[in-house]
Amino acid sequence: MVKVGIVGATGYTGAELLRILSRHPEIRVEMITSRAEAGRKVSELYPSLRHIAEQEFVAPDAEALRALDVVFFATPHGVAQAMMSEIAQGDTVVIDLSADFRIRDQEVWEHWYNQPHGAPNLIKKAVYGLPEVNRESLKSANLIACPGCYPTSIQLALKPLLERKLIETTGIIANAASGVTGAGRSASVATLFTEVNDSFKAYGVSGHRHLPEIKQGLADIAGESVDLTFVPHLVPMSRGILATVYVKLKDQTQNLQAIYESSYHNEAFVDVLPSGVQPETRSVKGSNVCRIGVSLTPNPEVVVVTAAIDNLCKGAAGQAVQCMNIRLGLSEQLGLELPALMP
Amino acid sequence: MVKVGIVGATGYTGAELLRILSRHPEIRVEMITSRAEAGRKVSELYPSLRHIAEQEFVAPDAEALRALDVVFFATPHGVAQAMMSEIAQGDTVVIDLSADFRIRDQEVWEHWYNQPHGAPNLIKKAVYGLPEVNRESLKSANLIACPGCYPTSIQLALKPLLERKLIETTGIIANAASGVTGAGRSASVATLFTEVNDSFKAYGVSGHRHLPEIKQGLADIAGESVDLTFVPHLVPMSRGILATVYVKLKDQTQNLQAIYESSYHNEAFVDVLPSGVQPETRSVKGSNVCRIGVSLTPNPEVVVVTAAIDNLCKGAAGQAVQCMNIRLGLSEQLGLELPALMP
Amino acid sequence: MVKVGIVGATGYTGAELLRILSRHPEIRVEMITSRAEAGRKVSELYPSLRHIAEQEFVAPDAEALRALDVVFFATPHGVAQAMMSEIAQGDTVVIDLSADFRIRDQEVWEHWYNQPHGAPNLIKKAVYGLPEVNRESLKSANLIACPGCYPTSIQLALKPLLERKLIETTGIIANAASGVTGAGRSASVATLFTEVNDSFKAYGVSGHRHLPEIKQGLADIAGESVDLTFVPHLVPMSRGILATVYVKLKDQTQNLQAIYESSYHNEAFVDVLPSGVQPETRSVKGSNVCRIGVSLTPNPEVVVVTAAIDNLCKGAAGQAVQCMNIRLGLSEQLGLELPALMP
Amino acid sequence: MVKVGIVGATGYTGAELLRILSRHPEIRVEMITSRAEAGRKVSELYPSLRHIAEQEFVAPDAEALRALDVVFFATPHGVAQAMMSEIAQGDTVVIDLSADFRIRDQEVWEHWYNQPHGAPNLIKKAVYGLPEVNRESLKSANLIACPGCYPTSIQLALKPLLERKLIETTGIIANAASGVTGAGRSASVATLFTEVNDSFKAYGVSGHRHLPEIKQGLADIAGESVDLTFVPHLVPMSRGILATVYVKLKDQTQNLQAIYESSYHNEAFVDVLPSGVQPETRSVKGSNVCRIGVSLTPNPEVVVVTAAIDNLCKGAAGQAVQCMNIRLGLSEQLGLELPALMP
Repeated sequence: MVKVGIVGATGYTGAELLRILSRHPEIRVEMITSRAEAGRKVSELYPSLRHIAEQEFVAPDAEALRALDVVFFATPHGVAQAMMSEIAQGDTVVIDLSADFRIRDQEVWEHWYNQPHGAPNLIKKAVYGLPEVNRESLKSANLIACPGCYPTSIQLALKPLLERKLIETTGIIANAASGVTGAGRSASVATLFTEVNDSFKAYGVSGHRHLPEIKQGLADIAGESVDLTFVPHLVPMSRGILATVYVKLKDQTQNLQAIYESSYHNEAFVDVLPSGVQPETRSVKGSNVCRIGVSLTPNPEVVVVTAAIDNLCKGAAGQAVQCMNIRLGLSEQLGLELPALMP
Repeated sequence: MVKVGIVGATGYTGAELLRILSRHPEIRVEMITSRAEAGRKVSELYPSLRHIAEQEFVAPDAEALRALDVVFFATPHGVAQAMMSEIAQGDTVVIDLSADFRIRDQEVWEHWYNQPHGAPNLIKKAVYGLPEVNRESLKSANLIACPGCYPTSIQLALKPLLERKLIETTGIIANAASGVTGAGRSASVATLFTEVNDSFKAYGVSGHRHLPEIKQGLADIAGESVDLTFVPHLVPMSRGILATVYVKLKDQTQNLQAIYESSYHNEAFVDVLPSGVQPETRSVKGSNVCRIGVSLTPNPEVVVVTAAIDNLCKGAAGQAVQCMNIRLGLSEQLGLELPALMP
Repeated sequence: MVKVGIVGATGYTGAELLRILSRHPEIRVEMITSRAEAGRKVSELYPSLRHIAEQEFVAPDAEALRALDVVFFATPHGVAQAMMSEIAQGDTVVIDLSADFRIRDQEVWEHWYNQPHGAPNLIKKAVYGLPEVNRESLKSANLIACPGCYPTSIQLALKPLLERKLIETTGIIANAASGVTGAGRSASVATLFTEVNDSFKAYGVSGHRHLPEIKQGLADIAGESVDLTFVPHLVPMSRGILATVYVKLKDQTQNLQAIYESSYHNEAFVDVLPSGVQPETRSVKGSNVCRIGVSLTPNPEVVVVTAAIDNLCKGAAGQAVQCMNIRLGLSEQLGLELPALMP
Repeated sequence: MVKVGIVGATGYTGAELLRILSRHPEIRVEMITSRAEAGRKVSELYPSLRHIAEQEFVAPDAEALRALDVVFFATPHGVAQAMMSEIAQGDTVVIDLSADFRIRDQEVWEHWYNQPHGAPNLIKKAVYGLPEVNRESLKSANLIACPGCYPTSIQLALKPLLERKLIETTGIIANAASGVTGAGRSASVATLFTEVNDSFKAYGVSGHRHLPEIKQGLADIAGESVDLTFVPHLVPMSRGILATVYVKLKDQTQNLQAIYESSYHNEAFVDVLPSGVQPETRSVKGSNVCRIGVSLTPNPEVVVVTAAIDNLCKGAAGQAVQCMNIRLGLSEQLGLELPALMP
């Protein structure tokens, strides 16, 4: 059995990791850390995990973590950086779900996260954990930087078009909307039920931290720089992201539906919907699948690609487990055959 | 007192008309029609109106309607067309909340609504009921075609930019999202609570009936043709529309915040938010106000304008009453001083 | 114009007071206090109040408050007690929406609120602000203790039965459910959207602070002590309370529907629904009305009374304004003709 | 592999059966019937099942169904009765999720369902499918009548008390609340998002079809007749039932927490929460677990038991699979190790 630890498991992505790993046949979760909740049972915070994950939180301890095969960081940005040099010494595979190692340009990271990077020498070591793009590199990565939720949906939406150079690489619009788990489990007025329920709004219009990550990822796929405008929105729902991406075709003669279908034909976790069908976020709730719809619009130059994921699963914990499976040489789908809960 | 009738008041826009008119000091609702519910009290369907609107539905009768001062049509498209020639003979002011007379080009209407127009000779007589654009014409209109909910939000979002010719008139993206009342009150699987709750999706991507209306309205404002891509989404909330509109500046030196503020300075029902503040739909729930935010983005060429309205109020019934007030020479705000219900 | 102040207007009941008073023809809100938000505009927290309540919060000041005609306390318990002796000296009418003066027995208060009472000498001076029970006393009260939201719904549900001595006064079950605004606007994990959405639970089963208030109020109505079991629940909705009250008849021959209708015939804010119709909370959202349904059950001894209110309106701010109107000799409905927002 | 058919799989319980059975290692779903949707793929209605249940609906055919090992009926009441005599001839195990065979007294059934029973001779053959009560009988049952969702929660809440004769068997109050999937997937105005969202109400107060089933079940457990008042409510959530049950103790000296814990110690799908903890419906969403809280109240005679289930899972499809596992001699938990999806 592979021995696994989770650092910072009080948040929603940590709990989602526990939900998934509890059913993973090759994994044993050995350690769940939380400074604030040390000594408390995980299932007190998440009664859904009673009799499933009965461990107690312990304070994080680098030595103990180094003794494990895989360590997941489900922490706010900055935490993984601070602990990484102590843990990333031996053979332990570190899978970081935070933003700490997603961006290769240290200066860009420091600009958007407004703090010095805590482990700049490790940035190069990190492999960006989007299996549909980086599968080969993940097979030997010892530090995996899992993509953000918005970036996952937008990169998967655009990959078939960008790698075939079918669209303009400037003027792309990525309008996206997220459920409220995206904001985490910290007490705050802005995400109270009473502030979010029965309402809808945009946020981060003048700049959101996922923007540089998205641009970097799209440029990697396209082989050239890509410019896009990204506006996230908040939806009164628990889980889910929908990206609605507007692109301009360079060539209107292609059969885009066929291109998407063949492009993702071998991907277990990308589902191209039939022509004309729009993905709903509920169709991926609790599942690791990204569902994609490709639509022509009344303007023959403009194509709209919509991509739905569960922000906690394919957008975080599920993708992290997918990366782990690849790294460990396990079947990529192991433990991730999770039908969505609908309705 | 002005004598008013409402045709088709079983739906949500009809009920919203009743909520507003019940408090309007110059109005008496004399007749509420519904073929299906004739003989039943309105308040049986809408207990919120008990002791407020205690009338019974009656079957529609053209002669009786002609005897009224103002008749509102809150019916599906096609109904107003069929009855209009009988009613629009005398001095009765007809205010149609449906799509029947919004589009001036008969062929375009017939294409998008997939049926022959029922009163083509009256199309020219209709004045498009967006007061912030057409106030003067409304003062003498006897047939007022109230805008659709999406078109209202998008036209108000773009008016200051288009009439000053500050933006490109092609390549505009209008990404919009609506609460479920936009789909009406008919029994249907697609809008069951269990099909909509805790989810988000796009729809009508390949073409939505509001598109030709939006293009016509924007062209009227701009004085030239305008091309935009419009994608609506469904939000799990009862009321509200948010339009997120992406435009490309022709001139980046302008102070857009000041332009919006001065442009709407005299408008009672358009509220330009302080720079950097995003409108939430809940801030206009039950109110006739459209709140607008203007935001620069990391790309200096691209500006995002967000506009929030209550689809049933400024997007339908409230705007209809605003038009009525203008037509009757009353204060434009009469009966419409409705603070939003928040939270 | 009556000069009014609101102490602690950052919370939802304070904002609801502002929504109502902004349309009240005889009132001018002169002072809105908040220690934490002093200097900030109310409409920054509540954009729904832009151009409606443009005042700034100021720090509370007893002298300035004493100069007003009416002061509302929309504060957590303990605050009104601490400030009351300074304010309740002259002619200022104080209307306290908190729990500070609801319970006449000082010891009981101190037991349930777990702190010494801050103004025990004023407890006797306070009149319990349930107009349907205490209208006469309210006409001359200078300190009005507005009922809690649950107690309002349960007392109105039971009044006709208790004052006619038609039911057993022991064994009453009051099962109630509230929207999340009942928990206030403080940052807390338990009331995050993500902790409340799409779920339902009971709380406070072993004892809730509204229990002694309910028992006191029912005993006042019945003229004898009343025993009941009260279990509140949390509903994923913003506003609303539904009390489902189970009682045992002493006499099964009475026409309960007729009794309720005649009992509340003259009450503007209590609406007895037709036999067999159940009140929905949405039918009172934003309104000061309590809607009541009286139902026989398959067991001829057991009757179920359901009562729906808006917890922020008839359960708090609306009732406070109703009390103010009574105290000032104004029409009881002034400023409270608010049709519910449905849907 | 066990060959299984599902009759009427267009509804939510049918889809939930497919979600569960798709991961069940001993089962192959051979036939999914729907008269209305014959020829259409299941995954067109439920995109969550794409690549998981790719079968097409076929018209129901008795002969083909008889050739299967297990047939589930996920149909409205009346359907199973009409087809049963043709199917229940051979060795096929029939598991009926509808109400057709739940009630042993034919007259009572006909009274509440207002139609003649379609297969009265088979009523006696049916075994009531509540494993925690009837496990032994289920091992050899060829016609299993799965309990309703409300009855499941209420019987599990009361079993430990009734079988030990610790409470009065009259005057029990079962106040229950359900998510909207309980109303099924048929087009209807009453369950539109816009009619249910952000609201709460009671229904069926004067009598609900689950009442006779609950009484029969409780009497079976108690060994004597039991009288209770049952009032269901509708919660704006997709899945979940919470029963809040009020009982009167005959003996106040017992340690009820210990009794519940020992009573359910061996039950994989009943989880007794620690003393003082209330179950939330979200903690069982998508899982087959019933979570129970036992609470003393300020009145030492009155105890409140709260029980939460997922109405589609333990209240329908999950329980049906649990019964199937028992009947087939498989591990009772096979295919049902489903952690709840929270949040």
